[in-house]
Amino acid sequence: MKVGFIGLGSMGMGAALSALRAGLTVYGVDLSPAALERLEQAGAAGVGQDASAFAGDLDAVVLLVVNAAQCRDALFGANGIAPLLKPGTPVMVSATISPDDARRFDEDLRAAGLKMLDAPVSGGAAKAETGEMTIMAAGPQDVFDTLEPLLDAIAAKVYNIGETIGLGATVKIVHQLLAGVHIAAGAEAMALASRAGIPLDLMYDVVTNAAGNSWMFENRMKGVVEGDYTPMSAVDIFVKDMGLVTETGRSLKFPLPLASTAYAMYLNASNAGYGKEADSAVIKTFAGIDLPKKSGG
Amino acid sequence: MKVGFIGLGSMGMGAALSALRAGLTVYGVDLSPAALERLEQAGAAGVGQDASAFAGDLDAVVLLVVNAAQCRDALFGANGIAPLLKPGTPVMVSATISPDDARRFDEDLRAAGLKMLDAPVSGGAAKAETGEMTIMAAGPQDVFDTLEPLLDAIAAKVYNIGETIGLGATVKIVHQLLAGVHIAAGAEAMALASRAGIPLDLMYDVVTNAAGNSWMFENRMKGVVEGDYTPMSAVDIFVKDMGLVTETGRSLKFPLPLASTAYAMYLNASNAGYGKEADSAVIKTFAGIDLPKKSGG
Repeated sequence: MKVGFIGLGSMGMGAALSALRAGLTVYGVDLSPAALERLEQAGAAGVGQDASAFAGDLDAVVLLVVNAAQCRDALFGANGIAPLLKPGTPVMVSATISPDDARRFDEDLRAAGLKMLDAPVSGGAAKAETGEMTIMAAGPQDVFDTLEPLLDAIAAKVYNIGETIGLGATVKIVHQLLAGVHIAAGAEAMALASRAGIPLDLMYDVVTNAAGNSWMFENRMKGVVEGDYTPMSAVDIFVKDMGLVTETGRSLKFPLPLASTAYAMYLNASNAGYGKEADSAVIKTFAGIDLPKKSGG
Repeated sequence: MKVGFIGLGSMGMGAALSALRAGLTVYGVDLSPAALERLEQAGAAGVGQDASAFAGDLDAVVLLVVNAAQCRDALFGANGIAPLLKPGTPVMVSATISPDDARRFDEDLRAAGLKMLDAPVSGGAAKAETGEMTIMAAGPQDVFDTLEPLLDAIAAKVYNIGETIGLGATVKIVHQLLAGVHIAAGAEAMALASRAGIPLDLMYDVVTNAAGNSWMFENRMKGVVEGDYTPMSAVDIFVKDMGLVTETGRSLKFPLPLASTAYAMYLNASNAGYGKEADSAVIKTFAGIDLPKKSGG
């Protein structure tokens, strides 16, 4: 099976390397020469800043770019891959996008004679590298069947949500609502602890051993305790994702009081200049507290 | 060691039974005859609706009532225990109360010749029953030392936050901020999933296997999936606790955007008539969705 990975950031690179380890023939597309070189040295059959050299050979495409605009460009832009693929090639759209965008891509891919799997992913860079992502996918059963070797290679768990394109994107967005609120709540709680004179390492220890814990608290507030805001995932990713969450709420005429509040916190953090820092830097918008500094930094 | 447990709800009963199993001499006080009978049959040395029959024999007291008003009544009310205790007896105040209330109790206990441990607990009824609560405690080191056999019997983990009374209450309140926001966020996410046509059992499965998970989501949203709102902990408990959280924020002049929003959600749920149902019933305030019904119910 020949698979083209478009987007070689932390998730795309991890998935591509997992596919290589599983014995699939892998091709990679990214704008970064460093990423292309890394994948080529790992054994990719071909790499490029666009897919023109190998698109016609591919049996499947995985899109792991950042947003819907990048998906559109990668598929239908000036050097887009869609017109170059064999008829019927399945395209796994794994960026976090709105359900409306997922439905639009499906229409346009079908018009181009291609098939779509609406297949957002979760699990972070570490799970992508070990081939253990979680995939929440919607699409025709025959596309699931065709892509099975690929899904097996890159995911520990694949949810088949049904045939209706858009449900994959929706499940991911509901998931991101929780992820985004949990990081912001972690920041709010740690900021309050700091204001009250509680040592943050003790607070972190209590919470992670008690019922107030969340996956995101445990993963992201560690950085706050250590004063380390190196981005694995940046504030601006949640500006985007919580924007998609609130857009989905509006589209469904549904109130989202906590998600809307968290969205405002991420917007404010980005405007304050923390957009490229770790998403936990949303805590820096709380004034009147002293946060831990990175040792030696 | 002779220990009196005041308040034999799910947490107090569990702690008292754990102390019995550890070989301590246990006394129990509660208004419920059923609770008193249960503890007596388990081997308590004495029980009563007040402590007058055995207060003078006690080496330690544990207060596991619901709020500060009940603490005050149990200690200093008409049948309060404080005037009956031996001088220097340590009183472990384990209700969830505000830091200001903790400091007031400390003053009044010291004026009565007694000692206080500011020692809120976490872990839920299950952990209380197995003697594995988490205790976050502040107080003089000699009180910690005196209470060591008791703490060993009822807790898996004891955090010594320092000598300053009020810090235990504060750590608990920061913890409750997270617990309360996580339940409300879980409800908001599941409500959105329902509105979007996602099966809630699938949504629950995805979240609990991914980075959007929290202890509270996993524990409480199970009931929503099953349509079961039997209260282990009720909406009105979080009306109280999120009230303490926002009171603490006000006292420290500190904004808590997510906690304030979640507090409003619990208040609204209580006013809608769900105060005595499970805290996850906060989801019932979202109009325009159909939630799962309990099978056979």
